[in-house]
Amino acid sequence: MKHTKPAGSTETAHLLERRKRLLGKAYRLFYDHPVHIVRGEGVWLYDADGKRYLDVYNNVPHVGHCHPHVVEAVCKQAKVLNTHTRYLHENVLDYADKLTAKFPGGLDIAMFACTGTEANELALRLARAKTGANGMIVTDHAYHGTSWAISQITTCYGSSDRRGDNIVTVPAPDSFRGLYAGDDEAADKYAGHLHDAIDKLAQNGHRPAAFIVDTIFSNEGLPTVPPGYLAKAVEIVRAAGGLFVADEVQPGFGRLGRHFWGFESHAVVPDIATMGKPMGNGYPVSAVVTSAEIIEAYQKDSHYFNTFGGTPVACAAALAVLEVVEQQGLQANALETGDYLLDKLKKLKANKFIIGDVRGSGLFIGIDLVGGPDSREPATSETSRAVNLLKERGVLIGSTGRYDNVLKIRPPLVFTRQNADLLLEKLEGVLSEISGTL
Amino acid sequence: MKHTKPAGSTETAHLLERRKRLLGKAYRLFYDHPVHIVRGEGVWLYDADGKRYLDVYNNVPHVGHCHPHVVEAVCKQAKVLNTHTRYLHENVLDYADKLTAKFPGGLDIAMFACTGTEANELALRLARAKTGANGMIVTDHAYHGTSWAISQITTCYGSSDRRGDNIVTVPAPDSFRGLYAGDDEAADKYAGHLHDAIDKLAQNGHRPAAFIVDTIFSNEGLPTVPPGYLAKAVEIVRAAGGLFVADEVQPGFGRLGRHFWGFESHAVVPDIATMGKPMGNGYPVSAVVTSAEIIEAYQKDSHYFNTFGGTPVACAAALAVLEVVEQQGLQANALETGDYLLDKLKKLKANKFIIGDVRGSGLFIGIDLVGGPDSREPATSETSRAVNLLKERGVLIGSTGRYDNVLKIRPPLVFTRQNADLLLEKLEGVLSEISGTL
Repeated sequence: MKHTKPAGSTETAHLLERRKRLLGKAYRLFYDHPVHIVRGEGVWLYDADGKRYLDVYNNVPHVGHCHPHVVEAVCKQAKVLNTHTRYLHENVLDYADKLTAKFPGGLDIAMFACTGTEANELALRLARAKTGANGMIVTDHAYHGTSWAISQITTCYGSSDRRGDNIVTVPAPDSFRGLYAGDDEAADKYAGHLHDAIDKLAQNGHRPAAFIVDTIFSNEGLPTVPPGYLAKAVEIVRAAGGLFVADEVQPGFGRLGRHFWGFESHAVVPDIATMGKPMGNGYPVSAVVTSAEIIEAYQKDSHYFNTFGGTPVACAAALAVLEVVEQQGLQANALETGDYLLDKLKKLKANKFIIGDVRGSGLFIGIDLVGGPDSREPATSETSRAVNLLKERGVLIGSTGRYDNVLKIRPPLVFTRQNADLLLEKLEGVLSEISGTL
Repeated sequence: MKHTKPAGSTETAHLLERRKRLLGKAYRLFYDHPVHIVRGEGVWLYDADGKRYLDVYNNVPHVGHCHPHVVEAVCKQAKVLNTHTRYLHENVLDYADKLTAKFPGGLDIAMFACTGTEANELALRLARAKTGANGMIVTDHAYHGTSWAISQITTCYGSSDRRGDNIVTVPAPDSFRGLYAGDDEAADKYAGHLHDAIDKLAQNGHRPAAFIVDTIFSNEGLPTVPPGYLAKAVEIVRAAGGLFVADEVQPGFGRLGRHFWGFESHAVVPDIATMGKPMGNGYPVSAVVTSAEIIEAYQKDSHYFNTFGGTPVACAAALAVLEVVEQQGLQANALETGDYLLDKLKKLKANKFIIGDVRGSGLFIGIDLVGGPDSREPATSETSRAVNLLKERGVLIGSTGRYDNVLKIRPPLVFTRQNADLLLEKLEGVLSEISGTL
């Protein structure tokens, strides 16, 4: 989704020129013709020309762009106090209380940072402190963040030779495409790779500290996971002394509809859970939830402090998000609207051979585009075309997956059935146009 | 500054109990009897009992606690839009423009993250990409952040055996206490250690990627640096192919009075500068400023994106901070008030043998407490006592340095001469009380 030429308006061209000059060449924009967004409200984004876009992409504005309850909570607290966790303050405790109440017993402690990367950094340090081991097991097309250590376990970018020999990968489970698609024993077979990973670590002189997965496998293309896989995999890791870290940065906070956290959909309880993006509806806040036992091991050698983590304003934002999720019934809405959309998409699939698979949970849905009827060949360039065409037609959507051929539906949770109908209408039109070219 | 027993009030005891239960044992509080701060305004913080404290500690609220211009900027933007840098938006460009204008020519590019740790993470990756080398040289009691990679170059915590052999230390320069105190050739001699560091890296099979310093050496105790040291040190590193990273997280944004950035006070231009804490007056925002040439090397293999970095709200906060610094003349105030305070403290030193040295620049001043007249023995426990007594008397201050014996004066930049007088009055009383016990 790189941009190849500036969009029409002089203003956009000017912004593109300034951006290249001031931010440099390492930044990327979405879309062949990038959008200049100036306003957001609920599920809607508006560009500088007043054009309205249905936002099917952004999960950070979890309860909707500029939700007044969250904005008010941030402003109210920002006017009064915003210090740090080395003074006593109620907000961080009130939020930790509400957050840990969302977890099974034993996961009682919350620690705060600013980004998902920082939360995963802390999880990694906790796991290493608890186990005394250094090995990390991660799926083979995962995204967990951008720091030096976390980019080593972000296996979707770059080559494996950048990684230390303490990091080993296992194939991400996938019931549609992959090693054991259609195999009745896929769960056992995928889980069996954890044995291989532990053996490989041992050959390199390491023991496993942790197995970490994004529990919706978003970057892997939101695959349907063979039932029982994750519980089996975690059992193998624990038997070898390792912990299980559930990266809930993307699936968490009710998006999946049936469950508040992704790990619940796999019937497995993590030792450490990390969360971020949607947590403050855009205010930078992230967290780790874990057990007193793990903290006990960590604090023998280390303290923890993060300047902007757990501040009164950050926690006011996060508290307001939880309140809106509860008061507006957004987890239930994710389930109902998600099921409605999934059902309609499955019907659309019957008429559109470019749709190879439709899958997901709640308001986190993937549409796997393929090269032809009954094909599983990834339609990567068509996916990029669909993303750009949908943008032209007023729908902001992204793509994901190993082959970047999965349209990713991940809107703010205030997404309605009417929004779903609009998406379906636009999607049908665009896929018809693209299918004609296949 | 750990707490040993709960403060008197039931409410504080209750907060302490909740904190232990919900945040765990890895978090630390300031002061023997922690404070429960509920409100902030300018240089003042207020506890739950309405007691007012002069804030001489907090540098994050750079332009004063809850500065209305910054709060308004955040609220105004939060109501309209808060997305990310993959859409076009003016704020990130307007801020990058203003920020890079504060740097010498060639340092034209700004990249955004959320915390100082993340900025240093990016600097490290840029330096490694540019040099193709992996070695890091860092002073021996430095703080640069909390992630796995950055904690390796945070040499003030833990032992060196946790560090990779690609990280080597040099003694932090110090004109009062240390290897070459009082030596006319201290600058050359301290700089000479860079040769040793480069040799040691070579023995370990590494070349230097970067030499990184906090340009005010805050964690080292704000030492007076022998003039010319840093320029000489950087010259040696550059001759060996390494870059110089100026960590401006603490000294930056005008605090030092004479200069906007710490590196300017050493008459040396960095290849990469990092900044954070004061940048958004408490809103989590950080940045890296560097050259197009370094970005050119980095972007061959890597893109850059940080979900919450450079958002419209983050940049609105940071823009507002720059505006206040300029409109209220806060750099000039840091110089004038800082010089006034420094002068008074030097006079106080003449009458208080517990004060071994007074040093610093602008509103970043260290008072080095010692064991007796003409002694350089660090008065560590007396420093902790002073910090706690000052808190009881309504002044929030911290300590720093290798021996934790340096009172650190680092208030919001709206600190006035009247505030300085109040600090001096309380400080004199407390030091008299403590001196009596020496």
